[in-house]
Amino acid sequence: MQSRNIVFIARSLDGYIADKNGGLDWLNTTPNPDHQDMGYEKFIKSVDAIVMGRTTFETVCSFDIEWPYKIPVFVLSFSLESLPEDYKDKAEIVKGSLSDILEQIHKKGYRQLYIDGGVTVQNFLKEDLIDELIITTIPILLGGGTPLFGELPREMEFEHVESVLYLDALVQDSYRRKR
Amino acid sequence: MQSRNIVFIARSLDGYIADKNGGLDWLNTTPNPDHQDMGYEKFIKSVDAIVMGRTTFETVCSFDIEWPYKIPVFVLSFSLESLPEDYKDKAEIVKGSLSDILEQIHKKGYRQLYIDGGVTVQNFLKEDLIDELIITTIPILLGGGTPLFGELPREMEFEHVESVLYLDALVQDSYRRKR
Repeated sequence: MQSRNIVFIARSLDGYIADKNGGLDWLNTTPNPDHQDMGYEKFIKSVDAIVMGRTTFETVCSFDIEWPYKIPVFVLSFSLESLPEDYKDKAEIVKGSLSDILEQIHKKGYRQLYIDGGVTVQNFLKEDLIDELIITTIPILLGGGTPLFGELPREMEFEHVESVLYLDALVQDSYRRKR
Repeated sequence: MQSRNIVFIARSLDGYIADKNGGLDWLNTTPNPDHQDMGYEKFIKSVDAIVMGRTTFETVCSFDIEWPYKIPVFVLSFSLESLPEDYKDKAEIVKGSLSDILEQIHKKGYRQLYIDGGVTVQNFLKEDLIDELIITTIPILLGGGTPLFGELPREMEFEHVESVLYLDALVQDSYRRKR
């Protein structure tokens, strides 16, 4: 099966993934009484490993919840030497250029990769390494914060795959890189 | 009928309304052999005047086409004293604060307003004067350019109205300000 790097992320209508204070409360402004998962379970079953940046890793660790992933997690970090003891069986640090890292991960047999975290997504995009974007738009203007997208050395076209409406409020658009 | 200020605009997947060179060619990357108008005619019939910034006015004037509007156009400008002779029967300069300008326009009987142009949209949003956003997303990452949205003094929630797919590629989302 072909390797694929996939982004699955929520952004505000004005393109932020965290608000001006780094907060994520705005993700839950739409009432969700039945705990609709916005396609997350279906998506997570379609990938076989997760690649995230250190900030995202630390954010997940800071949540007062059980470790949420059942598949291997690779944490991109130049600065971290080792993971906290509690996470050593859950995640693994990877270092090097993105192509080196992908080669390491592919050699371990993981080819359908969930790429997560703002900086990591931007770095993958800079090297044109993202194959699919699944973006859920929350109908709120934050007016500032951490942007999903950043500067790119060149334009990249995508194909529209599908759009799904959740909770009568959130539009989830899937795009595939046109190559 | 209630007054409404409506934005109808296209942006790239990463939120730009013009590319790094101010160009708009990327708007036409999707083949459109039947000249599908992406809902423009229907939209323009739903408004009774257009409010645009000077830059947008000058951009429209620079296109090598007939004047494209059949309804009154109000050009927001602090610097322009008068319009070029050719445009005097087509558009009118308005000056003052946005609330003053809206009052002037409402007094003339125009209440369903198409608000156009990047800076103008941002200025209306800063004062929470936009009631509807109709945004068509072009499936391309530009990696830089003129952003549709800017800094806002506070968050603003919207309701999803509808999403329409054009040319199997462009998603047009309509949102209404939640008040």
